[in-house]
Amino acid sequence: MTGFFSEENSVNAVNARMGVDIDPRLRTVMASLIKHLHAFIKDVELTEEEWGKAIAFLTRTGQMCGDERQEYILLSDVLGASMLVDAINNRRPEGATESTVFGPFHVANAPVRQMGDCISLDGKGEACLFEGRILDLDGQPISGAKLDVWADNAEGFYDVQQPDTQPQWNNRGIFITGDDGRYHFVGAKPVSYPIPDDGPVGKMLAALGRHPYRPAHIHFMITAPGYQKLVTHTFVGGDEYLTSDTVFGVKESLVAPFEKTENSATMWKSKFDFVLAPK
Amino acid sequence: MTGFFSEENSVNAVNARMGVDIDPRLRTVMASLIKHLHAFIKDVELTEEEWGKAIAFLTRTGQMCGDERQEYILLSDVLGASMLVDAINNRRPEGATESTVFGPFHVANAPVRQMGDCISLDGKGEACLFEGRILDLDGQPISGAKLDVWADNAEGFYDVQQPDTQPQWNNRGIFITGDDGRYHFVGAKPVSYPIPDDGPVGKMLAALGRHPYRPAHIHFMITAPGYQKLVTHTFVGGDEYLTSDTVFGVKESLVAPFEKTENSATMWKSKFDFVLAPK
Repeated sequence: MTGFFSEENSVNAVNARMGVDIDPRLRTVMASLIKHLHAFIKDVELTEEEWGKAIAFLTRTGQMCGDERQEYILLSDVLGASMLVDAINNRRPEGATESTVFGPFHVANAPVRQMGDCISLDGKGEACLFEGRILDLDGQPISGAKLDVWADNAEGFYDVQQPDTQPQWNNRGIFITGDDGRYHFVGAKPVSYPIPDDGPVGKMLAALGRHPYRPAHIHFMITAPGYQKLVTHTFVGGDEYLTSDTVFGVKESLVAPFEKTENSATMWKSKFDFVLAPK
Repeated sequence: MTGFFSEENSVNAVNARMGVDIDPRLRTVMASLIKHLHAFIKDVELTEEEWGKAIAFLTRTGQMCGDERQEYILLSDVLGASMLVDAINNRRPEGATESTVFGPFHVANAPVRQMGDCISLDGKGEACLFEGRILDLDGQPISGAKLDVWADNAEGFYDVQQPDTQPQWNNRGIFITGDDGRYHFVGAKPVSYPIPDDGPVGKMLAALGRHPYRPAHIHFMITAPGYQKLVTHTFVGGDEYLTSDTVFGVKESLVAPFEKTENSATMWKSKFDFVLAPK
């Protein structure tokens, strides 16, 4: 045992270099990262040419990032890493509404609106009434719950992706529940859309024979004093991409009914109750 | 089995998405990557905050790359990934000289020099005679072997790192062996130096309690018709960083003697025979 690096001794050789006084959590995370990174390289016997392509891919992915684009989050999303981190960090008791990915399109400090308001400021697409209750695990309504809501417009773009053509805060709003725990507002029925696929991640998806689409959904971030924050979506039942969401965000329990209302030939209705877990 | 993503089913959920007609090698590599990436996240139960730091680190590493800097190669180097890929792709028969990392400082088409020439064009540092033979596995000299040689100057920088202050092709050259398989040339005795450590990789090394130094070495890329290309270094025996090379490039068999010559108080000599494996 010389301490020199060898194919057999590679993991120990690298991990033994860590200092004695470093952050213990960093030590744990890095030791595991080295173990799995080296196991991957050994398993596939990565060639020097493949290594070069990997270096170039990782470099381009970083260089694609800017104020309006986070290609590394896209990469994490399409590899299932984002959903796995979400799952591990949001284990909830039976009966509580499940979480899903936060996504890159939330904007803080959206306008607070009145129950019943319409958040579709461009008036495009099919109107939909979103309604339901915020409940605790015993089925009791939660008063003072804050729903932060965001969605794409009828063309599949969030307002921040089209700042020149969409009104600011289009398809966004914050709603606060009263004593009955109910929420209701009008928005555009969401549509499926591709994640940005003109960069390295899009090229990778194409090489893997995968499409870049997410099924139609609307985002909810729900907070209430004494309860765990819930970051989730509801998905439009029947969407063609429900079983092939390119970021793996769909959970069966989050697929919501979208039905025509009784009183209108054009208005949709989606009813969904959210159940919060206590802190 | 719904096909939806879950913590338990995460690897299968992602890998099942690959198309049927894709490149089989890509399928193998990606399936293994997903397996090990998800195993890492599960092993350490990566937090959402840590995930966010990882995204930011990977992004900054890509954005640090430019014409003069490849931070992702540095990252691969300090994690032992480069040496592992080198080891897997350069398994050689007993007796053949071992390989080590190529490094980022090679420049193609260096001047061809005569045996005995001096490659230290800035005249800095201590002079050293490098000499030895290029042999086959039977110990027979190889004629027409091409040695492409490069090293740092006495201040620890390659010419391409200091284009304004070092002569072009300083400490570089190509030598061709004759029938005796011998090589000999004069250069500066190499000195240890830190890899560029003012970027994300340098910050990571500091957090891990690791220094950024490489032990003193000189690079050789040796080719000859009918033989496998050999990319390697010789290391200066006795260097203080021999057992802690930050890129894990040292192999015991590559540590060369550096001794004062008999005839001079100032001149060093390093004798090393290289043994090439047949193709």
